[in-house]
Amino acid sequence: MKVEKILPKDIEARSFEIIEQELGDAELDAMQKPIIKRAIHTTADFDYLENLYFSDGVVEKMMKAIKNGADIVTDTNMARAGINKKLLAKFGGEVYCFMADEDIAKAAKSNGTTRAAASMDKAAKLNGDVIFAIGNAPTALMRLCELIDEGRINPAAVIGVPVGFVNVVQSKEMIMERKVPQIVARGRKGGSNVAAAICNAVLYMT
Amino acid sequence: MKVEKILPKDIEARSFEIIEQELGDAELDAMQKPIIKRAIHTTADFDYLENLYFSDGVVEKMMKAIKNGADIVTDTNMARAGINKKLLAKFGGEVYCFMADEDIAKAAKSNGTTRAAASMDKAAKLNGDVIFAIGNAPTALMRLCELIDEGRINPAAVIGVPVGFVNVVQSKEMIMERKVPQIVARGRKGGSNVAAAICNAVLYMT
Repeated sequence: MKVEKILPKDIEARSFEIIEQELGDAELDAMQKPIIKRAIHTTADFDYLENLYFSDGVVEKMMKAIKNGADIVTDTNMARAGINKKLLAKFGGEVYCFMADEDIAKAAKSNGTTRAAASMDKAAKLNGDVIFAIGNAPTALMRLCELIDEGRINPAAVIGVPVGFVNVVQSKEMIMERKVPQIVARGRKGGSNVAAAICNAVLYMT
Repeated sequence: MKVEKILPKDIEARSFEIIEQELGDAELDAMQKPIIKRAIHTTADFDYLENLYFSDGVVEKMMKAIKNGADIVTDTNMARAGINKKLLAKFGGEVYCFMADEDIAKAAKSNGTTRAAASMDKAAKLNGDVIFAIGNAPTALMRLCELIDEGRINPAAVIGVPVGFVNVVQSKEMIMERKVPQIVARGRKGGSNVAAAICNAVLYMT
């Protein structure tokens, strides 16, 4: 295969052009398409054409929340590293990941939960709009569901894309039964890269 | 699907058990298997059973380099966030990502290259053993090939798992033509999560 000559600044646009071509005549909702494309861009996996679930109006709701200065809470420092924090800051928002916090390790131990679950309890204390971007731990998503049911948390939106084999599918089914605005990768796939990509796609649309 | 009752500490082991089951009787090299499994664990994508290329003895060589205090250079802060830095530090190594450095932005601009390529030039100045973990930018991998050809760099190993659509396959073909110890995800797939997972798999084996 021959190397394609291309200027650094044009690489991303060319990538999206190739994705667009390969999507062919797939009929996609105009608000969802940039998000689907960015998930494919970050994984080179066209499964994201089929597996992403969007609740009604979730993209508009996320954009509105971001404009209002919403914060983003993630369950991994990898997702935190990947989210465009400069752009979010322009709208007044911040990205939090509590996973490595000392109080989280303690809370998880004394409650017999995962640190991911404990970090959702901490996030419940944040003021203002919060978007949750869960790219790793199904236990975070399941704990979010409980906090929603108990009326202790009211997320502006949930990005539910944990990855893996233990309770991942179940945690996604659980959040999809809730009325919260959400984008979910059905099945086992997802990841902190996908969580970050979805956040960034919506940020770039805002 | 019913939620599986499981203690937080057992989730990872159970995940690997499920992966093991689904691999069935695939015959895998004993040194490669933990790495293949961890790549699948981080993506839930069994393509990594087929697409990972290992040069002869690369895992042993990486383990030896880590024991000797090798540093790891990555092309994304996401991969940097994902690598087990505490464990690497026990062996005396550090993880570097130069992508956000000011001198890199300047060098890239004045050379008309990507920041990823410029950060390989900076890495060439490091002393001691260096493992390169490229999870995003094919331009980093291509620049590495040039530096190897010019005798300006001699990586302890290269993890070549950039992801995407523009020159990704080409950059991987290029590195596989070089004699450097390497693990490469053939094709378009890869990512900073996969780069981190491969580093961690080898760290856990060391």
